[in-house]
Amino acid sequence: MQRIDTGTRRIAILTDTIRRLIHRHATVNLVKIIKKTHAADLANVIQGLNENDALILFEMLPTPEVAADVLSEMEESARANFLETLSPERLSTIFQEMSTDDAAQILEEIEDEERKNQILEMMKEEDSDIVEELLSYGENTAGRIMNPDFVALPKATEAGDAIRELRKASETEMVFYVYVTNEDRRLDGVISLRDLVTVPPETILQDIMNTEVVSVEAHEDQEEVARLVARYNLLAIPVVDAERRLIGIVTVDDVVDVMRDEATEDILKMVGTTEEEITAASPLRSIRIRLPWLFVAWFGGVVASRVIQHFHEAIGQVTALAAFIPVVVGMGGNIGIQSASITVRGLATNRLESHHILSHVAKETIIGLFLGLLYGVLLGVAGALLSWGEPDAVQFGVAVGLGMLSSMLLASFLGSFMPLFLHRLGLDPAIAGGPFVTTTIDILGVAAYFLIATAILL
Amino acid sequence: MQRIDTGTRRIAILTDTIRRLIHRHATVNLVKIIKKTHAADLANVIQGLNENDALILFEMLPTPEVAADVLSEMEESARANFLETLSPERLSTIFQEMSTDDAAQILEEIEDEERKNQILEMMKEEDSDIVEELLSYGENTAGRIMNPDFVALPKATEAGDAIRELRKASETEMVFYVYVTNEDRRLDGVISLRDLVTVPPETILQDIMNTEVVSVEAHEDQEEVARLVARYNLLAIPVVDAERRLIGIVTVDDVVDVMRDEATEDILKMVGTTEEEITAASPLRSIRIRLPWLFVAWFGGVVASRVIQHFHEAIGQVTALAAFIPVVVGMGGNIGIQSASITVRGLATNRLESHHILSHVAKETIIGLFLGLLYGVLLGVAGALLSWGEPDAVQFGVAVGLGMLSSMLLASFLGSFMPLFLHRLGLDPAIAGGPFVTTTIDILGVAAYFLIATAILL
Repeated sequence: MQRIDTGTRRIAILTDTIRRLIHRHATVNLVKIIKKTHAADLANVIQGLNENDALILFEMLPTPEVAADVLSEMEESARANFLETLSPERLSTIFQEMSTDDAAQILEEIEDEERKNQILEMMKEEDSDIVEELLSYGENTAGRIMNPDFVALPKATEAGDAIRELRKASETEMVFYVYVTNEDRRLDGVISLRDLVTVPPETILQDIMNTEVVSVEAHEDQEEVARLVARYNLLAIPVVDAERRLIGIVTVDDVVDVMRDEATEDILKMVGTTEEEITAASPLRSIRIRLPWLFVAWFGGVVASRVIQHFHEAIGQVTALAAFIPVVVGMGGNIGIQSASITVRGLATNRLESHHILSHVAKETIIGLFLGLLYGVLLGVAGALLSWGEPDAVQFGVAVGLGMLSSMLLASFLGSFMPLFLHRLGLDPAIAGGPFVTTTIDILGVAAYFLIATAILL
Repeated sequence: MQRIDTGTRRIAILTDTIRRLIHRHATVNLVKIIKKTHAADLANVIQGLNENDALILFEMLPTPEVAADVLSEMEESARANFLETLSPERLSTIFQEMSTDDAAQILEEIEDEERKNQILEMMKEEDSDIVEELLSYGENTAGRIMNPDFVALPKATEAGDAIRELRKASETEMVFYVYVTNEDRRLDGVISLRDLVTVPPETILQDIMNTEVVSVEAHEDQEEVARLVARYNLLAIPVVDAERRLIGIVTVDDVVDVMRDEATEDILKMVGTTEEEITAASPLRSIRIRLPWLFVAWFGGVVASRVIQHFHEAIGQVTALAAFIPVVVGMGGNIGIQSASITVRGLATNRLESHHILSHVAKETIIGLFLGLLYGVLLGVAGALLSWGEPDAVQFGVAVGLGMLSSMLLASFLGSFMPLFLHRLGLDPAIAGGPFVTTTIDILGVAAYFLIATAILL
């Protein structure tokens, strides 16, 4: 995030214009504007209108193709209203014009099973079969986001014939590669469209195909798909079944969306919430999402309060000890979340490998040791100076300084160790940013602080 | 992040194999493996080897093209060693084989200006001119990441001739679009390669070109490039100068890298560190990166301690007040970082618009109010029960409950307001996750807590 987005401003102006035209019933001008505007922008505009205006605009879209594009580009929360309001007939016409992977994804958002089946029945049999097949794969898998439209040819095909085949395949929206398969539909090789048009037409595909094809199995996570596409700079990745038969492709434009969503998911999961909250309209839904995470933190806080209460004698004698609780706990929390974020993001981007646990945790702990020493000394000096003149000012400084050191050391160790440990167990490391780790750090930090302080001061 | 990455394991096994072969001087087998392995994987392997083995492997790469690919795919920190060790002659040969945008980016990493100029001088004049031109654009701009190799033709060209032109343009690695420009090199339209091969060869480009071209100016931020490519599902976006002359293209594979980097940057900026830390070898560098952020937090903590010290009488009388500091401050911090994360990510993904400040902040504040009430009541009950039997147990419960409510209310307001405010000022909202906001929340939260508590209890 660097600068104010001029695109956002453009959409805001467009939304205002369209809203005014709707209220003035200026149909001719509206049609003109709609025709000139990209579907992605129309989707954005619709999200800025009230429900009534949004429906009016949607009904003015010239063809079911445009309606399909607009609906695909909308946010899930904004789309919900259309999925509930439009007739099943209308929706089935629109779904038929969508790429099947989008259709499958959006159909899944309809909660009313009967309505969903009604729409599926109204769709062309061929389309609805494909959609139902996609829906048989788990959420967030390669199978669910793949597009079953691709161009596959036998290896004896000539380049010129392959190009003629491409001309026929008008349904296939994005062609970058021609896949070469054997009689069993197994994937043998791949040729880029560019290579295809730059060789003499009589060249045999087998002679120019690349046999080292990077592919992904249908049940694999969409994040693995994104990682492979990013690593090998692919424009599309073939999806195969357990027998290595080609069943679909995932194109890079879908991968771009996956990457955006997964990054957002990672960030928000670390603070105990979900992407849904960004666009969800009702505060009630947000409250329900955050409730459990905050409960864990709340419970941890109550445990910490019990730990502190255990040292109430020390606090009664040296009330300044209480004053330094937030800074000691807070600095532990800060360095802990830094270590956790680096570890989680390092794992997510494949730059940190989980078999390097020891060296990574050691490095983070060393960083915690040094920064803990530095800020511990600073806090000790500040503590001693601020309580100068009182008895035990120096000992007090030593106590808060050592308290901070132990809190930061502990936090950097746990912050780096926990995500790696969770990852090793096959769990999502991003939850380590969550309340379990942070409140553990809080409780242990505060216990260490008071143990050290009572040992020195009492 | 969902499951253990099998790709990582494969690279680990490959790295072990290669390491063993290097130590056994098994050159024949090494060459065989290198030939079969993708450059991106070789880059990963090299990063897992020690400096000496890494150099041996790098020197075995069959051609400068492969060396260029491997060097491009490596992490900046791993690459540094090669940039320092290899001779300027060797490096210039490698840079010549790179796409010019990669060459420019990697050359910038060489700190020794003399060495950098030496390499530039040794490169072919044509290549080094382009690299120097790219370097004239600011970091993280469209101009810096664009590729100046593209196919642009006059609108009177026939489709068949256009395909013949493509065959000649062997330098251009990724062609998806043919751009149509006028005599002044101004961008008039665009045609996808797919449309080009599926029309009769005698079709005139003007008749099939799309005139609504989404383009970006060279000085714009790479994040804007990524946003446009994602929004309009593009495979490449043309980069134009102030006169709308076509000067380069940014391809989607580079955008995928930008998106990954920007997401990581956002996450890590929110906790006061940078991407460099993930791969940087030395803890010292990490310490320098985190030092200033932690200093702000430290200073805020000391201010908070002064605020608490101000209420030392209250603490002396009711030591249990101190015990609840972490939970009151912590829950404020939790909900504050939730609100901030949602706001920052909503802005980054264009789903939250900064002119909706009021409604967004109101929503977050309502969430803070409800969750504050809920956890305030819970904490009040817990506080009263835990100090049951002592005088003023009920008042104590009311005090800590109200303290929590005010802390959470304040935090959700500031957490959502600050990023929007920073964004409005043209600053990066991600820094709102940082210590300025969190320690402000801490200080105000603790002050509110003690003001309420002394008013009720003393």
